[in-house]
Amino acid sequence: MTSSRTLLVISAHAGDFVWRAGGAIALATSRGERAKVVCLSYGERGESAKAWRAGRTLEEIKAIRREEAENAAAELGAEIEFLDAGDYPLVESRELVDRLVRVYRDVVPDVVLTHTLADPYNGDHPAAARMALQARVLAQAIGYEAPGEPLGAPPVFFFEPHQPEQCDFRPEVLLDITPVFDRKRKAMECLPAQQHMWDYYTDLAKRRGVQLRRNAGPNLGLAHDTVGEAYMRLYPQVTDVLS
Amino acid sequence: MTSSRTLLVISAHAGDFVWRAGGAIALATSRGERAKVVCLSYGERGESAKAWRAGRTLEEIKAIRREEAENAAAELGAEIEFLDAGDYPLVESRELVDRLVRVYRDVVPDVVLTHTLADPYNGDHPAAARMALQARVLAQAIGYEAPGEPLGAPPVFFFEPHQPEQCDFRPEVLLDITPVFDRKRKAMECLPAQQHMWDYYTDLAKRRGVQLRRNAGPNLGLAHDTVGEAYMRLYPQVTDVLS
Amino acid sequence: MTSSRTLLVISAHAGDFVWRAGGAIALATSRGERAKVVCLSYGERGESAKAWRAGRTLEEIKAIRREEAENAAAELGAEIEFLDAGDYPLVESRELVDRLVRVYRDVVPDVVLTHTLADPYNGDHPAAARMALQARVLAQAIGYEAPGEPLGAPPVFFFEPHQPEQCDFRPEVLLDITPVFDRKRKAMECLPAQQHMWDYYTDLAKRRGVQLRRNAGPNLGLAHDTVGEAYMRLYPQVTDVLS
Amino acid sequence: MTSSRTLLVISAHAGDFVWRAGGAIALATSRGERAKVVCLSYGERGESAKAWRAGRTLEEIKAIRREEAENAAAELGAEIEFLDAGDYPLVESRELVDRLVRVYRDVVPDVVLTHTLADPYNGDHPAAARMALQARVLAQAIGYEAPGEPLGAPPVFFFEPHQPEQCDFRPEVLLDITPVFDRKRKAMECLPAQQHMWDYYTDLAKRRGVQLRRNAGPNLGLAHDTVGEAYMRLYPQVTDVLS
Amino acid sequence: MTSSRTLLVISAHAGDFVWRAGGAIALATSRGERAKVVCLSYGERGESAKAWRAGRTLEEIKAIRREEAENAAAELGAEIEFLDAGDYPLVESRELVDRLVRVYRDVVPDVVLTHTLADPYNGDHPAAARMALQARVLAQAIGYEAPGEPLGAPPVFFFEPHQPEQCDFRPEVLLDITPVFDRKRKAMECLPAQQHMWDYYTDLAKRRGVQLRRNAGPNLGLAHDTVGEAYMRLYPQVTDVLS
Amino acid sequence: MTSSRTLLVISAHAGDFVWRAGGAIALATSRGERAKVVCLSYGERGESAKAWRAGRTLEEIKAIRREEAENAAAELGAEIEFLDAGDYPLVESRELVDRLVRVYRDVVPDVVLTHTLADPYNGDHPAAARMALQARVLAQAIGYEAPGEPLGAPPVFFFEPHQPEQCDFRPEVLLDITPVFDRKRKAMECLPAQQHMWDYYTDLAKRRGVQLRRNAGPNLGLAHDTVGEAYMRLYPQVTDVLS
Repeated sequence: MTSSRTLLVISAHAGDFVWRAGGAIALATSRGERAKVVCLSYGERGESAKAWRAGRTLEEIKAIRREEAENAAAELGAEIEFLDAGDYPLVESRELVDRLVRVYRDVVPDVVLTHTLADPYNGDHPAAARMALQARVLAQAIGYEAPGEPLGAPPVFFFEPHQPEQCDFRPEVLLDITPVFDRKRKAMECLPAQQHMWDYYTDLAKRRGVQLRRNAGPNLGLAHDTVGEAYMRLYPQVTDVLS
Repeated sequence: MTSSRTLLVISAHAGDFVWRAGGAIALATSRGERAKVVCLSYGERGESAKAWRAGRTLEEIKAIRREEAENAAAELGAEIEFLDAGDYPLVESRELVDRLVRVYRDVVPDVVLTHTLADPYNGDHPAAARMALQARVLAQAIGYEAPGEPLGAPPVFFFEPHQPEQCDFRPEVLLDITPVFDRKRKAMECLPAQQHMWDYYTDLAKRRGVQLRRNAGPNLGLAHDTVGEAYMRLYPQVTDVLS
Repeated sequence: MTSSRTLLVISAHAGDFVWRAGGAIALATSRGERAKVVCLSYGERGESAKAWRAGRTLEEIKAIRREEAENAAAELGAEIEFLDAGDYPLVESRELVDRLVRVYRDVVPDVVLTHTLADPYNGDHPAAARMALQARVLAQAIGYEAPGEPLGAPPVFFFEPHQPEQCDFRPEVLLDITPVFDRKRKAMECLPAQQHMWDYYTDLAKRRGVQLRRNAGPNLGLAHDTVGEAYMRLYPQVTDVLS
Repeated sequence: MTSSRTLLVISAHAGDFVWRAGGAIALATSRGERAKVVCLSYGERGESAKAWRAGRTLEEIKAIRREEAENAAAELGAEIEFLDAGDYPLVESRELVDRLVRVYRDVVPDVVLTHTLADPYNGDHPAAARMALQARVLAQAIGYEAPGEPLGAPPVFFFEPHQPEQCDFRPEVLLDITPVFDRKRKAMECLPAQQHMWDYYTDLAKRRGVQLRRNAGPNLGLAHDTVGEAYMRLYPQVTDVLS
Repeated sequence: MTSSRTLLVISAHAGDFVWRAGGAIALATSRGERAKVVCLSYGERGESAKAWRAGRTLEEIKAIRREEAENAAAELGAEIEFLDAGDYPLVESRELVDRLVRVYRDVVPDVVLTHTLADPYNGDHPAAARMALQARVLAQAIGYEAPGEPLGAPPVFFFEPHQPEQCDFRPEVLLDITPVFDRKRKAMECLPAQQHMWDYYTDLAKRRGVQLRRNAGPNLGLAHDTVGEAYMRLYPQVTDVLS
Repeated sequence: MTSSRTLLVISAHAGDFVWRAGGAIALATSRGERAKVVCLSYGERGESAKAWRAGRTLEEIKAIRREEAENAAAELGAEIEFLDAGDYPLVESRELVDRLVRVYRDVVPDVVLTHTLADPYNGDHPAAARMALQARVLAQAIGYEAPGEPLGAPPVFFFEPHQPEQCDFRPEVLLDITPVFDRKRKAMECLPAQQHMWDYYTDLAKRRGVQLRRNAGPNLGLAHDTVGEAYMRLYPQVTDVLS
């Protein structure tokens, strides 16, 4: 049943999906689900300081970032698409939103992951989130002109930003990524320009794992090396069991 | 597997669990789970206006309320216990918290339901919630002197208050109670003194059902007569799948 | 005195004013006040699913929606104007804001009603609200080039969105619409494509009526069939009596 | 009609009602309404620094504060009652709440004024507010044993604390006290030990007056010497006209 | 050491920096630091009512406002630059943000002051703040094409809006401007068209001074004529001593 | 000058001050300031699981915890006092608050550190904070009967709880504890029963160090091994320089 599910990740820059949602992606693909990542930009200007300092050209940097992200996506078992909309700033436009509507209508996701709506350290992240959310609503309208059927109402999760407390981020969902963490680590290692992040996000995974164990129900018996990712929900959870 | 799960509901007055959590209780018992309701008081002073106007004595009112609540619990398949701590006001005390610790240690709940922490219309509700939460934390400590093993960390859900918006209540979890709504209705009808509430909470169930359908994922195919109950979480959700 | 007052309602789509502010409009006109509704779009793409499924063209749908809204406005005793700015998405622009400035300068409203600033289910609603608010401020400036005198500072009320709790909506003002509810119901019935909404908003009116009675001062003696609409204020209330 | 209305002010210390609600009280009594002030303490320990430094005894200080407050109340046309419950700290107790229930049942207020629920500079203020609110709810219950009839649901307003922004105070209601400000000033001058407050609260009245003019509807024509007091509401406003 | 520090103030209109940050500017320049003010517009349409009523042309008004602001800046010892981007509305654009990036790269500020992100009375203020913040982040990126070195991470402070409580403004930093208040007063007096503001902001300075004394540590010994300005922080304070 | 300053830390249990404020304490004492820690309880019931499982008696556990805390305090150069008020639950009482008032009057702190006011995982923490804050206000009143002079207004900082996001904790102050981190680590190692915490709080210190560098002004030149502690402020910062 779950093998027909699809996860859609919409991120501002090429590397975001790895640090922030690599575990969720690997969990989905390990269950046989489809995962699709859409990168609005390569993060060529704002998140490639090392390459700029090494004197690379803009086009070279985009190519490097693209290849790295493709490698990371492959490690996670995900498809990846780049919209090359430019970063720093990522400029919101009706055209870009329309491209995302078409992605939604094509992919028909069961779950959507994107950035938080606030991030005082990086304006591209909220811009990506606003477009991802607007496109999701537009894709639901039968009257919106784009190929495909009107979308249902897939739940939206915000992944954890780099400085969560300054972005009004509060873990509402703690996702146990223990079984796939080695794949997340390998995917992170596909991004050599940000090597200091490998340990940073490994430490964060442990930290969220500690919280997972503290908040888990009594019978789950989580191991001491549990690692996790944290998410917020935009919409209420719909369920038939409280747990 | 789920048949060994236990739901604990801690409420201030005898009728609260019916209006606010009757669906969750019936869902649990319909799955073969155990459900236990603890009423801190009978609601004898604050929620029995009709009986007072009819000239009943305090003891008569408590007996009436008790019988009605027992009938409603039976309809929902739940056990019920009354602590008879008095209402209007429900006075917080270390002794009452201790009694709740012993309930936790005895029942070993997998899930806990209680009132919201804010309610400007009824101070007994937050008082009950504060004690329910304090007792849950105390029951976790091996050093707390009470029979039984230290409690795990069962998730806590706040059920919906009568005027939710004034109580900072925002539906975070929408529970589909469609399959058991007839039992919730029958349980409500066990409380004849508050007959105006039967329709009020039936209307609310429909309203939450409309929201359920609007927030459900694309493949759920919820029927038009879906009815629901809304809950908030105190602690983050722990899960291994985002949905 | 009050017969010289004017109510201005600015909404995103053709039907919004009926469900959400029909009572306030009918109350105003029943007191002999002027009420003017401005619809930024017809809701042709996002709120006309039935007509799209019936194979209607865009122009046909706009004509249908226009006629329905005109009928509803007539039932409520209100004037109505359509700016035909398109929906899904309703695109914010300086030109559209300028048109609203001219409406303000022309109508000189004493009270303004519009959407909430947050609505994760419908981006057109906040877009309409942002433009309505920006235009109100611009219209106050003597230096803004548009016909008419600088506007005063009419209070602004946000009407209730479809899923209020997810839109940070909290009833701050409960308006008793009992004397005019039959006119609101008739106005709703002018919108046959959304027949499921008639009962939904009738139930909501009852729900807000119950809260009206619970929050009314001791001497108001509200009847059991009281119905209401809920609003939020953007600015502080100015008064010479606390009540 | 309004001459039968009653205003009840519940404050922690003897002087609070003058600085924070003197205008509202004078407005009420100038309309022929009844106003009753209940002071839970004299502010003998926490708000009488000058007298302590002058070497007065506790009993002398209480007598001084009492007389001053009586004079101020007389200036405002209000009755005043002292519960002498002690301050710094004002200790919450069931007995004190019960005394307030009896006040409510006796006075039958149409409007209630009290402190905000947060004040990091003075714990007595929130303690007074919590008791005032709890007693109001208890007084509504027919089953609560106290003389008189069950109370209705009088609206509650929080008056402005000394450092409003640190107390989560946001002006929601701006009350025009211009016609009675001279009486408020005279009442303030009945409190000579806090002379620095006379100008402080006169300046605040001007500041709130500026905001009154900025937020008033276009036709009110408020004069430049408008002065005001700010309030928050605990419960939604109930009305039949939006303004 | 501090003589090499630079303060950058980005404001929407020509006068804003005087009322809201004149003390901070004068303090900085009195310590020998550089202060630079950037006015995005002259406030020619929205904040020059007197001149419009006197029949001045747009160009005349801009010239008047410019001269007044230059005089005020001189009084405070600050440099000033006008971007002449128009007001009411101040329209956000990528070009204007780019101009601000260049200012940042050129000035290399140690501290940045700007408007709050919310202001329901004046949309230009949040627009200016959003651009000031976006430009600050862009200026940090080595890949952003503009002269100069990538910016560090200067702290950002929001100065106090005219109606602070409605703008979610809460004093987080109280700045003692006593030694330079006479210069702030003289700078205010350079703006004759808004004479009513001189006393308004002098009263506010006293009010913030009272709070300064109430919140100061025990040994500061602040005088009774202490005056202050209030600020909020966007980012956490970085320090090596708690005080 | 600073050598006469005093830091007061009020915590619920014996170990809290080490994990959460060890760096701030060591910084203060390394500057020659006095630091005093007051532990309301030993954490004997709620935070000594290992000892309970090892079959120790209550008195043994208290003695162990006391010795460990004394060792940790010595490592940090701080004085320590135990009020032995019991934990799980730490019961608030007027007597305990009075003891704290006497501590304030005796120690005359320049800065106060305590727990956050919210912590859904441990009710003792907010209870300690409430008493610490109430005592601070009482100690300021000349009329409060206790030895010593009325207290000034020392600023209060909340240290970081174990699960900060669930406790409404947001880093407002990032304290650079790099020069003293080795002493904090040694102090942590004085608490062998909670060995898993050593690395947890070392990781947290690194995480806060990363944020320190990201939020530091451009000229600070912080090293890559910067470590930090995070704090919130209860009251506004008072300063004469923005930085």
